[in-house]
Amino acid sequence: MSLEISLRLPGWVAEELGEPSRRFRSDEEKMELAVRLADRNVAEGTGGPFGACVFEMETGRLVAPGVNLVVPAGCSVAHAEVMAIVLAQKARGSFDLAAAEHEPMELFASAQPCIQCYGAIWWSGLRRLVIGARGADVEAATGFEEGLLPERWQEHLERRTSLPPVEVRTDCIRDRALEPLQRYSESGGLIYNPGSTAPE
Amino acid sequence: MSLEISLRLPGWVAEELGEPSRRFRSDEEKMELAVRLADRNVAEGTGGPFGACVFEMETGRLVAPGVNLVVPAGCSVAHAEVMAIVLAQKARGSFDLAAAEHEPMELFASAQPCIQCYGAIWWSGLRRLVIGARGADVEAATGFEEGLLPERWQEHLERRTSLPPVEVRTDCIRDRALEPLQRYSESGGLIYNPGSTAPE
Repeated sequence: MSLEISLRLPGWVAEELGEPSRRFRSDEEKMELAVRLADRNVAEGTGGPFGACVFEMETGRLVAPGVNLVVPAGCSVAHAEVMAIVLAQKARGSFDLAAAEHEPMELFASAQPCIQCYGAIWWSGLRRLVIGARGADVEAATGFEEGLLPERWQEHLERRTSLPPVEVRTDCIRDRALEPLQRYSESGGLIYNPGSTAPE
Repeated sequence: MSLEISLRLPGWVAEELGEPSRRFRSDEEKMELAVRLADRNVAEGTGGPFGACVFEMETGRLVAPGVNLVVPAGCSVAHAEVMAIVLAQKARGSFDLAAAEHEPMELFASAQPCIQCYGAIWWSGLRRLVIGARGADVEAATGFEEGLLPERWQEHLERRTSLPPVEVRTDCIRDRALEPLQRYSESGGLIYNPGSTAPE
């Protein structure tokens, strides 16, 4: 029985990231990178139509990228946001991105996080979440069944008081963020809902 | 920038599992294993007070164990349930535990899954969830802030119709399942809420 798991982003991701010292200056520029990762994940056939990036809020430097690996990795947990969070924590050597020794960090997600990724954000220590496409966009364009978020989930992140709060911005270059979703659907990408691989 | 992550259960886990061919016969017996993993994770100082196991429902065979690795792995996503799901999917070579070629599978969690693990279960293809301690038990005994589940989360799993439903049983040997939580708290185990490593 194997007691170890490894997950690796596709080789092309490094090419998309460009110069490690680059400073991203606006939300739109940061989101464009997350969406470009989603685009290329579809074009390369290396996973679902989702990209995510963790940045340092003050410097604008990229800490970690993520793309969806569910189908190629055979792992339903390997969503873009989870990959970006896990790799950001690895980069900082800490389960807590809100620890005092780190710069505050933010997550850019090409589409609204599902229930699992919402929960991963809850625990991560991220201080800001910026979202491209809406949850309804994802379901309408693709057929993924995202599960229900808690009512007022945004408020729960933003107004939590005993934990560091998480600011939320939605609809960041939303039209642009729809493109990988539509392309995935048009290209017949697998909608990996549970039970989806059962014979018809 | 590292684009790969590896997570490995502690070496002692293999000892606790016993014979790979063993067939577990009752919910209580299965839960006892999940709780024993939580106990030993506390005793060994290898993570938080949580254990989980995936079993084949019909044969009673263990598919994969999981324990909480958050602090030692520096990864807030590495909860016991996530580890068990990811390792079960690795064992079966599939992101979809509800795929027709697999035996139906169930997750035993020593304590009620948090919001992240609830979402991981949503996508996993598991068909049954059995819970030991309650969410309120976890918060009362330890101070972990588990986040809010969607209202009627149990109903959403059990009654979903377009995805394979997930049956839920709660309070399985609940008193026994409290023990690792209490022991972790008494032993001064780190409550790894985000922001918890900030100086006081």
